Amino acid sequence: MNTYTFSERGATEAIEEGRALAPKFDADGLVTCVTTDAASGGVLMVAHMNAEALARTIESGEAWYFSRSRRALWRKGETSSHVQRVTEMRIDCDQDAVWIKVEQAGPGACHTGRRACFYRAVPLGKAPDAALVLEFRDADKAFDPAAVYGAKAD
Amino acid sequence: MNTYTFSERGATEAIEEGRALAPKFDADGLVTCVTTDAASGGVLMVAHMNAEALARTIESGEAWYFSRSRRALWRKGETSSHVQRVTEMRIDCDQDAVWIKVEQAGPGACHTGRRACFYRAVPLGKAPDAALVLEFRDADKAFDPAAVYGAKAD
Repeated sequence: MNTYTFSERGATEAIEEGRALAPKFDADGLVTCVTTDAASGGVLMVAHMNAEALARTIESGEAWYFSRSRRALWRKGETSSHVQRVTEMRIDCDQDAVWIKVEQAGPGACHTGRRACFYRAVPLGKAPDAALVLEFRDADKAFDPAAVYGAKAD
Repeated sequence: MNTYTFSERGATEAIEEGRALAPKFDADGLVTCVTTDAASGGVLMVAHMNAEALARTIESGEAWYFSRSRRALWRKGETSSHVQRVTEMRIDCDQDAVWIKVEQAGPGACHTGRRACFYRAVPLGKAPDAALVLEFRDADKAFDPAAVYGAKAD
């Protein structure tokens, strides 16, 4: 698992139009990852990958992330068993974001117990102020996070 | 446009289960934004919003971003006329990422001339090395970026 080499970042033309994987890791060594449900197409979660998480995801076909809060490599589902099998990985034009489509094992991806992390809508059309009220959507709990995670979320 | 107030970040319970918008801006003052096509469901792009971009998007119902490379507030389509009308905005559990569904005006969202930024797939199942070859998918050019943008991309 420890042998992986990404390409060096070259000229813009090579990064955008080339066939070499040359990820642009940020100052913290991370790229953004958008994870969508291969079945429904909805966004399940947004997380980050460091080089090792990206390499392990590519090699294993299961989603690995890097937890910014825990500062640790993180195999999705290692605690919950809610693993994510990657059906497709895409990289964006400037190679600082990846999009994975996954088959989500178990009832959900979100540590709050929902299917997905985006269970609240922001009302549009007015300047946001203290009166703005989020609307819960697709927010039913799919599992009991305390039972699944105990004190540790993934 | 200059009057907006987001809620203060409170306890985890309030952030995750509450109805107040309390975005978690990072050290650079940004949240991540995933933009999907309201019609196809596919991911068009991943970008960032600072507080003003987020507020303007909420107020106007059109996508505003903050360009990290240009360090500037950025109304999507200001150069290209490829504006994005937001049909729904969601915020995630810990409120550091937003997901907008948009009606994309014009032929595409990507500055390279494609419909979307994720036009290359990463092959799975092997440790990445120099032999890894990205596969172009949904990569047809939808417009001529030089004609649309000149020297300036949005």
